[in-house]
Amino acid sequence: MSTIALGVDLGGTKVEAGLVAADGGVVPGSRHRRPTGRDITPDGLREAISTVVGEALALLPADADFAGAGIGSAGPIDLQAGTIDPVNMRGVHGFALVEAVRDAVIGATGLPEVEVRLRHDGGCLALAESWIGAAAGTRASLSIVVSTGVGGGIVMDGRPIGGASGNAGHLGQTFVDETTTEETASGPHTVRWAQSRGWTGETGEDLARSAAAGDEIARAAIERSARAVGRALADASTLLDLEVIAISGGFSRVADDYVDLVAAALRETAVLPYARATRVVRSALGDEGPLVGAAALVLR
Amino acid sequence: MSTIALGVDLGGTKVEAGLVAADGGVVPGSRHRRPTGRDITPDGLREAISTVVGEALALLPADADFAGAGIGSAGPIDLQAGTIDPVNMRGVHGFALVEAVRDAVIGATGLPEVEVRLRHDGGCLALAESWIGAAAGTRASLSIVVSTGVGGGIVMDGRPIGGASGNAGHLGQTFVDETTTEETASGPHTVRWAQSRGWTGETGEDLARSAAAGDEIARAAIERSARAVGRALADASTLLDLEVIAISGGFSRVADDYVDLVAAALRETAVLPYARATRVVRSALGDEGPLVGAAALVLR
Repeated sequence: MSTIALGVDLGGTKVEAGLVAADGGVVPGSRHRRPTGRDITPDGLREAISTVVGEALALLPADADFAGAGIGSAGPIDLQAGTIDPVNMRGVHGFALVEAVRDAVIGATGLPEVEVRLRHDGGCLALAESWIGAAAGTRASLSIVVSTGVGGGIVMDGRPIGGASGNAGHLGQTFVDETTTEETASGPHTVRWAQSRGWTGETGEDLARSAAAGDEIARAAIERSARAVGRALADASTLLDLEVIAISGGFSRVADDYVDLVAAALRETAVLPYARATRVVRSALGDEGPLVGAAALVLR
Repeated sequence: MSTIALGVDLGGTKVEAGLVAADGGVVPGSRHRRPTGRDITPDGLREAISTVVGEALALLPADADFAGAGIGSAGPIDLQAGTIDPVNMRGVHGFALVEAVRDAVIGATGLPEVEVRLRHDGGCLALAESWIGAAAGTRASLSIVVSTGVGGGIVMDGRPIGGASGNAGHLGQTFVDETTTEETASGPHTVRWAQSRGWTGETGEDLARSAAAGDEIARAAIERSARAVGRALADASTLLDLEVIAISGGFSRVADDYVDLVAAALRETAVLPYARATRVVRSALGDEGPLVGAAALVLR
């Protein structure tokens, strides 16, 4: 009898569910998604969750030991209340996400009760990274995403560090000089900075191509983003005494040396030797990382 | 039979040892100290430790259940190696502190072995604050000292958060703008800032009196320190999702409203609601806090 958990990943563009085995593998064919978006309503979200949870659980083997459901959600969340206040989905502030997933699981399985655990998506990503990714086997790690936003999560001694309400790890809203890390370093902000200096592309992919072709503004924009992330991480490493920082997210692939630039900025900035010694590495997770990390909340 | 632990607190000016009971109380008469100082040697430190440990353990009741020794040390430390690299005592870098305390305890008691645990002093302070102080009963707290330096420690769900090498909590070496929090906000730096603007006092106590008497430069210097601490704490609270931040240290008493000024700066700076909601309070510990927190490493 194999142990299997349901992972649910809720973000600003989609909600996804899938079955995850005790070794971190996703059960083939069990991963399903529906769009969410800025204007989604509570009823629309409940319906989407019910659908993807039902589709995923249809693949649950009859003899499986079902461990329950783990949820990773766009933050902030309220761990105690089991609700969410996602920055990018204003219409579902206060949404009872734990209850919605529990209802969906009970509806799909007929089980009398089910274990459901919630973290913000950065926390789930970090848990996956420390389980089967680049932070495996380490005592203290921070895993971050550099994409349309900048976020992350913390794991110490195998446990996700949630803080008072489950939101620890929001690196993007820490400050570098007068601006938040996200407002300086995210993909869209970096593109806008380059545009404001005369660069004529539109996207992060354009920026990557321009920089690779020798465009100085594009390259400067990328270096500026990496420097801001590295400086924010110097503070995080000083405060948290991290062994490893793993970097993922589409914009972190804007240049081959993006992670190296981040690491260099961390080492230039950090004052204390243990903080300068933190390794900065590229994520070893595929795109199923957040889903696997959500399931890890009940599997591990 | 009552449980009692030895607490050892090692700092830049003194090393102190005392016996702590299971309720957090210090056994009367058991607290002893010797000076350390910038130029202390390994032999000198070993001798001082042996002396204060012996003096403290002389008060151990014959029928006590001895839980072992907890050590709080000026950082950075190396938790795995059991050694220290204190910034302010260059001569004892690499000193095997855990071994020195173990030898002293075994020498004084004749016990065949003894449990010895090490954290940096900020971590011990935070543990005491979450046990018997202003952070008691909270899920996530940061306790800081604003004094000749700025330091701190983190406790989550009753456990000290040490990080990879035991140094998590070094708030003073995080950055506010281009300068570390300590270089902007500590007592000596704040005094120097006021002097550079024409204020003629010498000490933090002078600064407190001048500000209370209406001196605008002194008041501005105090507000500048509190603002820097509050801004650093906004980042810490965003990253760690803290329920309470407790502030201690001599310079935090430079003005009656120092803690309020820090709290206001945190709330002005932090972007996310959970971070703005962090309570900022004055420490509820007496000067035995670090010693009690060190003992808590083996008592709790």
